[in-house]
Amino acid sequence: MNRSVKQINHKKEAVLAQLKGKLVVSCQARVGWPMYGAEIMAAFAAAACQGGAAGIRATGVDNISKIKEKVSLPIIGINKQFRDDYEVYITPTYESAREILETGIEIVAIDATPRKRPGGETVEGILCQIRKNYPEVLVMGEISTISEAKAIVPMGFDLISTTLSGYTKESAGVKSVNLELIRKIREITDIPVIAEGKIAREEEAVMALDAGAHAVVVGTSITRPEIITERYVGALSQYGMNQEARRSLA
Amino acid sequence: MNRSVKQINHKKEAVLAQLKGKLVVSCQARVGWPMYGAEIMAAFAAAACQGGAAGIRATGVDNISKIKEKVSLPIIGINKQFRDDYEVYITPTYESAREILETGIEIVAIDATPRKRPGGETVEGILCQIRKNYPEVLVMGEISTISEAKAIVPMGFDLISTTLSGYTKESAGVKSVNLELIRKIREITDIPVIAEGKIAREEEAVMALDAGAHAVVVGTSITRPEIITERYVGALSQYGMNQEARRSLA
Repeated sequence: MNRSVKQINHKKEAVLAQLKGKLVVSCQARVGWPMYGAEIMAAFAAAACQGGAAGIRATGVDNISKIKEKVSLPIIGINKQFRDDYEVYITPTYESAREILETGIEIVAIDATPRKRPGGETVEGILCQIRKNYPEVLVMGEISTISEAKAIVPMGFDLISTTLSGYTKESAGVKSVNLELIRKIREITDIPVIAEGKIAREEEAVMALDAGAHAVVVGTSITRPEIITERYVGALSQYGMNQEARRSLA
Repeated sequence: MNRSVKQINHKKEAVLAQLKGKLVVSCQARVGWPMYGAEIMAAFAAAACQGGAAGIRATGVDNISKIKEKVSLPIIGINKQFRDDYEVYITPTYESAREILETGIEIVAIDATPRKRPGGETVEGILCQIRKNYPEVLVMGEISTISEAKAIVPMGFDLISTTLSGYTKESAGVKSVNLELIRKIREITDIPVIAEGKIAREEEAVMALDAGAHAVVVGTSITRPEIITERYVGALSQYGMNQEARRSLA
């Protein structure tokens, strides 16, 4: 191992150490969502930083660039690209990865399911190109099932995330944070696991760490006020309906 | 009662009915807070609206005006004014109330504690001037203790809120939603009570309704991502410390 490789590995390990046992806040909004906009994403990232988050997850060059102006936390970058003809949308191609890698992110995350992606690209192909051109960046493979995790272990990702659990056909039944998946990945590999997806409460974040996650990503429950509102509205309306029912029985 | 008074009362009752058993989302950020800015407050209000909120609470002419451009929900307007020489800061004077009343809000909320305010103004004096000049607006008195509530019942507020519970010397010990105060106010008056302050979970919002609140205001837990982040960070770091302790005992 030559000197520069050692330096690179040292840098990557430092980022991993920085995240260990910690919270990453995902700051994302799609076009048409009430909080959409790079300025607002940067404000959310600043809020996350102030609240003690160890990292930020964000999508797209515009958002990531604005966020980097405001906070210096490590960033898990993705590049969501929705197309009618492909199910894969999280950094689906090498080019989509390259765009965000140019912003200087510490971690790039890509969909690592075996599903088809544009241009006939493959997970391994994208990973290889990233390794070649951006050797100092950690690469995270995002999967939805244990068999998808098994398939990518030999590829040598730096991190594996449970992000897609509940968002693929293969994992359609999953409605809350997938602790079982975290445990199973830990059984087959020492690659650090990032728990992401459907964490709605502090207790669930803790349970994810307890299941063996290296770090926990929370998005919706911090940066999607429309969904947080919905949860309160749902609880109050449920209470109202129960009261109605009680009254009509009395 | 003449015709126009009847119409006004009808309009006010309609707003009260619209809020009954529902959620109001407070969208506020002070200068220097990460989410500060009228555009972001309006985005939060739009998110609250999308999530099913029945009303918005906001402070200051700029924020309220921007919010009104985006959502048509009833607004509880306040005008926070911090001064070194007075403890009262929620719409402390008639002039501060007038400014926001000019934006066309449905409800104006004022500090209704007996504490001193600028210009020697009194709670009753401010209420009277609002009644005279803005008879179609509901006026909410914000208090922190049951004795403050008792003192304002005869003044004829349309609504009483528990907003200041935990934020005055007289209520300094209060650390979570004050259900006891809601119950006590309900025992002494039929004026609808708005539960506000320190509601951090859906269950607490439900408990506030169950204690007799007419509606529930949630702010921090929806629109202060820095504090929501802090809660997750606190829970994860507590878990980490417990693990450390366990390890050192083993």
